[in-house]
Amino acid sequence: MTATQNQKLYGAIEAGGTKFVCAIGDIHGDIKESIKIPTTTPEETLSQSLDFFRKYKNIEALGIGSFGPIDLNKNSKTYGYITSTPKKGWQNVNFVGYFQKSLNIPVGFDTDVNAAALGEYKWGAGQNLKSIVYLTIGTGIGGGVLIEGKPIHGILHPEIGHICVPKFTGDSFDGVCPFHENKCLEGLISGPAIMKRWGLQSDQFPEGHAAWEVISYYLASGLMSIILTISPEKIILGGGVMSNLKLFPLIRNKIKSMLNNYLQIPEILENINDYIVPPGLQSDSGIKGSLALGISQ
Amino acid sequence: MTATQNQKLYGAIEAGGTKFVCAIGDIHGDIKESIKIPTTTPEETLSQSLDFFRKYKNIEALGIGSFGPIDLNKNSKTYGYITSTPKKGWQNVNFVGYFQKSLNIPVGFDTDVNAAALGEYKWGAGQNLKSIVYLTIGTGIGGGVLIEGKPIHGILHPEIGHICVPKFTGDSFDGVCPFHENKCLEGLISGPAIMKRWGLQSDQFPEGHAAWEVISYYLASGLMSIILTISPEKIILGGGVMSNLKLFPLIRNKIKSMLNNYLQIPEILENINDYIVPPGLQSDSGIKGSLALGISQ
Repeated sequence: MTATQNQKLYGAIEAGGTKFVCAIGDIHGDIKESIKIPTTTPEETLSQSLDFFRKYKNIEALGIGSFGPIDLNKNSKTYGYITSTPKKGWQNVNFVGYFQKSLNIPVGFDTDVNAAALGEYKWGAGQNLKSIVYLTIGTGIGGGVLIEGKPIHGILHPEIGHICVPKFTGDSFDGVCPFHENKCLEGLISGPAIMKRWGLQSDQFPEGHAAWEVISYYLASGLMSIILTISPEKIILGGGVMSNLKLFPLIRNKIKSMLNNYLQIPEILENINDYIVPPGLQSDSGIKGSLALGISQ
Repeated sequence: MTATQNQKLYGAIEAGGTKFVCAIGDIHGDIKESIKIPTTTPEETLSQSLDFFRKYKNIEALGIGSFGPIDLNKNSKTYGYITSTPKKGWQNVNFVGYFQKSLNIPVGFDTDVNAAALGEYKWGAGQNLKSIVYLTIGTGIGGGVLIEGKPIHGILHPEIGHICVPKFTGDSFDGVCPFHENKCLEGLISGPAIMKRWGLQSDQFPEGHAAWEVISYYLASGLMSIILTISPEKIILGGGVMSNLKLFPLIRNKIKSMLNNYLQIPEILENINDYIVPPGLQSDSGIKGSLALGISQ
């Protein structure tokens, strides 16, 4: 690696429904400067982001990890757009085009969760693994999937938060998902679902509260489905709800008990503590993954 | 391509729990000769298979698509083995080693369903697609997943037949899966489950029989989960149960209704008839895919 490569700078945007994180970093994933910008209107938020990047004259490329759904099909007329999002004012916004035109540099684009998975693959808990799944459980529930270091897209991109799981016995909660009500993970145990069920944030549950069993049951059900479908080498769980680390052992135990010795492999039977883990980059998976999207351009 | 390449021959084994199909074919997927051998003891079945291949002096390589679970980890001491199968006498059989030693040629090895997916990718309904899922619904339920033309493995390999799905309202069937009883697809709607529920094969249901709704509901639930997790470009459904083609429109309609317009993409909203399809190779997906495993060595 030459000295010049070491000095190259890249831009990154982690675009969320409540805030944008904009950052400048290098090929090692070191963030030199970053700011937070509230997500208001596209005009306001995008131009404030642009102002931040314009301070740097020598950015090689930009990476964007965005809330969605977004169009990732490079053959599509609306490639690089945020498409049918419920977020007011943000439908059909040409996200990639705006920065490509204004900064005249290559722009990498993916979902916020695929970006977070990429960050964990490059510099976090998923380094050198052939397949990882990153799941965020917060205001929404979403998942990114990396196979051989590359995010999978297919007909759209994974939307793991909306997989439907068997009901926890006796659970009569009516759900919060506008599409799947109380049937999908997001409807059953996203942050807003938890607040609606029990009037509490996920880090406020007292010992013995019913929420522990319900949340860990549904997450274990969803993860069992993911393990049996993708067979990933590691599963990384982030987001506000998972900042409550006491959920991890409950989830791991329930997965083992649900699989019931069907998968005779050490990752499940012996080393599940290393298999289902918190993000190695703490809350930086998304922004560092967005940086990686820029670097890979 | 040279004339020599065109003339090269490859061996293939589709290894199932009731029979082995052994075949000789070329790089175009054309089968020159094939035989069926009952799956009895490993000694008997493997040596009969070997006799078939020994008739040919010039086989370049062999491909095996096998029932499982199998060990696909090339760094493992038991790579190429059938491992913890419930099939009597077939535990810890060194499948790859047996043929590698006896024939002294390279041997490709994967699950029967990953092989079938590969066959469909090379010569069937999944040609030139970036990601496909092949599901077989028969004596067991299994799934193969191809990303960029390569079967995914991870910590083991996909075992999609065992994903757990929400209950059909009022369904009190106690299931047939020894691991997950009435909670997973295989326990609920595999061939033996259908026989135990209604005393019928899946091609014997009269018009209006309750089975249509139950089977299509569970398959649609499982496929919804697969679509939201992998976002594959095509889903191919094979196996004995799916030879009843009337199930296809029922499944497609239920998936649309369960997704409830969440995925605003033409593959689901407009062209679902081309998205969820029977195998292009009919019952040859597995043996031709095994051939492809040999060719790729």
